[in-house]
Amino acid sequence: MPAREAVVDTAHPTVGLDDTLVREVREALDRHDDVLASALAAPLHPSDQADLIQLLDPPDRAALLKALGSDLHPDTLTYLAEEVRESVIEILGPRETGAAVAQLDTDDAVEVLGDLDPEEQSAILAALPMPERVVIEQGLAFPEYSAGRLMQRDIVAVPEYWNVGQVIDYLRATPDLPDDFYDIIIVDARFRPVGAVPLSNVLRSRRGVPLGELKIKELRLVPVDMDQEQVAFLFRQYGLVSAPVVDDAGRLLGVITVDDVVDVIQEEAEDDILKLGGVQETDVFASPMETSRKRVPWLLLSLISAAVGATVIHHFEESIEQLVALAVLMPISAALGGNAGVQTLAVVVRALAVKELTRSNALRVMLKELTVGLLNSAVIMAVAGTLTLLWFGSVGLALVFAGSIVVTICVAALIGITVPLILDRLGFDPAIASSVFVTPTIDAIGFFTFLTLATFYLL
Amino acid sequence: MPAREAVVDTAHPTVGLDDTLVREVREALDRHDDVLASALAAPLHPSDQADLIQLLDPPDRAALLKALGSDLHPDTLTYLAEEVRESVIEILGPRETGAAVAQLDTDDAVEVLGDLDPEEQSAILAALPMPERVVIEQGLAFPEYSAGRLMQRDIVAVPEYWNVGQVIDYLRATPDLPDDFYDIIIVDARFRPVGAVPLSNVLRSRRGVPLGELKIKELRLVPVDMDQEQVAFLFRQYGLVSAPVVDDAGRLLGVITVDDVVDVIQEEAEDDILKLGGVQETDVFASPMETSRKRVPWLLLSLISAAVGATVIHHFEESIEQLVALAVLMPISAALGGNAGVQTLAVVVRALAVKELTRSNALRVMLKELTVGLLNSAVIMAVAGTLTLLWFGSVGLALVFAGSIVVTICVAALIGITVPLILDRLGFDPAIASSVFVTPTIDAIGFFTFLTLATFYLL
Repeated sequence: MPAREAVVDTAHPTVGLDDTLVREVREALDRHDDVLASALAAPLHPSDQADLIQLLDPPDRAALLKALGSDLHPDTLTYLAEEVRESVIEILGPRETGAAVAQLDTDDAVEVLGDLDPEEQSAILAALPMPERVVIEQGLAFPEYSAGRLMQRDIVAVPEYWNVGQVIDYLRATPDLPDDFYDIIIVDARFRPVGAVPLSNVLRSRRGVPLGELKIKELRLVPVDMDQEQVAFLFRQYGLVSAPVVDDAGRLLGVITVDDVVDVIQEEAEDDILKLGGVQETDVFASPMETSRKRVPWLLLSLISAAVGATVIHHFEESIEQLVALAVLMPISAALGGNAGVQTLAVVVRALAVKELTRSNALRVMLKELTVGLLNSAVIMAVAGTLTLLWFGSVGLALVFAGSIVVTICVAALIGITVPLILDRLGFDPAIASSVFVTPTIDAIGFFTFLTLATFYLL
Repeated sequence: MPAREAVVDTAHPTVGLDDTLVREVREALDRHDDVLASALAAPLHPSDQADLIQLLDPPDRAALLKALGSDLHPDTLTYLAEEVRESVIEILGPRETGAAVAQLDTDDAVEVLGDLDPEEQSAILAALPMPERVVIEQGLAFPEYSAGRLMQRDIVAVPEYWNVGQVIDYLRATPDLPDDFYDIIIVDARFRPVGAVPLSNVLRSRRGVPLGELKIKELRLVPVDMDQEQVAFLFRQYGLVSAPVVDDAGRLLGVITVDDVVDVIQEEAEDDILKLGGVQETDVFASPMETSRKRVPWLLLSLISAAVGATVIHHFEESIEQLVALAVLMPISAALGGNAGVQTLAVVVRALAVKELTRSNALRVMLKELTVGLLNSAVIMAVAGTLTLLWFGSVGLALVFAGSIVVTICVAALIGITVPLILDRLGFDPAIASSVFVTPTIDAIGFFTFLTLATFYLL
């Protein structure tokens, strides 16, 4: 395959799919001009082809798939978002999907099939040729989100006593190598990895040099059942490009390469953002019904926790009747506490994810967050107290409001750090300590503090 | 350098630094046992050495650096968080820092020096030997967060007419190659990249094969002034392991490798989480004073926007005096709207970042979010209305409350998508449309809707 001309437009570099192209494809499909639509979409990188399919409205997606026919790149299936992929596979049918899946790397094929329901899975597997089918079924046997699902089964492994010349001769003679590999893995007689040699080291060494002398890399082995989040951390922490995957006995099963890990890093960070926002998973391409079904439980949780806050206010109805300014000011105190809590929460959730916060410094960070809470509330208290004095002309109210802000912000800081720390210790995802749970708790505390102080000192 | 023994403990794989080791180092430092502390810390991977320094309390950090002496790995500086790195460089002084920086890859050296203030920078640069100094100064001349800052200047570039044998001979004869490289870049007579050959392709081809036949990769050039977020998108979108960086005339300046991009992907996602939480940047290791100084402006913003919501309530004081249940219920309506808005916001901010949401489908996604808002509010309205009826025994109040929930949730969905879309179109970071800004607006709308409906229908 010849390389395309390298094009670079430094003024306006287009990275990814161009909006103009999407519009042109849409217009071509509207005119039922399948030839033009296919001519525009076929030369795209599979990743861009996937984006194009995603950006189109569902009816246009089906039309484009029909227009593309066999020009749909098999790898495009890998790049599609889960919800869109399902509908594309439905349109293609098991036969055509099977033909595409057979051309994918094993790890990609496993990813594509892993998300489907069992009947669809077996329909497509039945359409696959025998050796591919077995390898993919083996991949699917590993738990979701485990290293086993990420790994590529085609590997380049050689014995330790080989020299550079032997490796080069072996690579030249073996037609069935993986598409991309970056390290030669050295295995012992029981097929356990004992070292890895980066290709650049093989290339710059003379033929007679034994491989054992070149394995400069500290070897990081990935147990096949390791969680993908841990795998991603391993790659990031040690700047790995590939890592061997091993079974319980330490035998080499496959290799994970950095391109798969890049997606995991992206997904895991995305996961934290969405969970902190009270969303289970990304749903841009899901139907409204599906999206609603997944978001409503979080809103119901939010309703329940807000109702708890409301019972606090209910308890102080008499105070509010006597001094209605309390109803005006209490949401401010709660909002400030909520924001201070979410600030801490966001920092803590990320610090836990990248292991900047561990048992070793948990106490120090807690003390720090409390100190920050005190400092912040001192500033905010002064501003808010002054504004209250100017607005309502009551020194007492201003003092009570200022005092409740200090308590609320400091308690919020403590909740913002302890809740995720406890969840993490218990083995839950700290990101679910989201606004849906932490904020209403802080709100309730904010209401309680302000209304109690007011009832005690003002009424 | 011989490889360490590959160790894998499949039962409890320790990824990264072990908490026990941190405790042991801390205890050794407490006993002033510098020999033990150094013996424990010196063999660590630089990335783990950096984590260890970060996890210690500031006084222990200085003690460990003293104990380590020249056993501090130069690369450790690269892995440290910015705030900690500054204090470490202060402890080391310009001479020692310069000695460490001189041993780093150019991109890493530029990263370490880039964060410092000008005086510190020039003090360390003055301590560097001449050729390194020039290259690093050139790197620092590129704008922060640009491709120029990320790139490695040592490159392997060969002319197109060479064959595999010539490349191998050249690599064997050249001592000054970069530590890690994954592609051979093919350049024309004016040093413009015209192709790239993965090392695995060189290795499996016979000596006589011309390089031109092996450049199977579509070449993705990175303009030197491209923003690092775009660079990260490029790598992720096309599964790149390395990419050539070029100037305006298309001439090869350097190479960006995936390990640097992995950090950028992590940082950019982290940035969105923090901004959505109302935090400027990660501050786990910053002092309380510094942290407070950066978080207070967001809280002041939150105070101002909450005060706007309070003026809405202030306007309805009479209604509340007549029916204090309004004060009890209004925060629930606001909280529900706020959560629905943040759900949409989180999804939209991520979708914009990964280009799943563009001009092409903005309208469709807006309509979808509105539909989701209607569906969600139908469910929540029913539950909340029933609860209100049971609690306050008033059909009118239940109906008004349910109605205000529908309006608030739907408006929240619209705000949650339009605000980040508008910010993005205007060239701002959509993540700053955070809870600090979107939530209070929704709160105010929630208060207004509920109190207006109640005043009109119930009083």
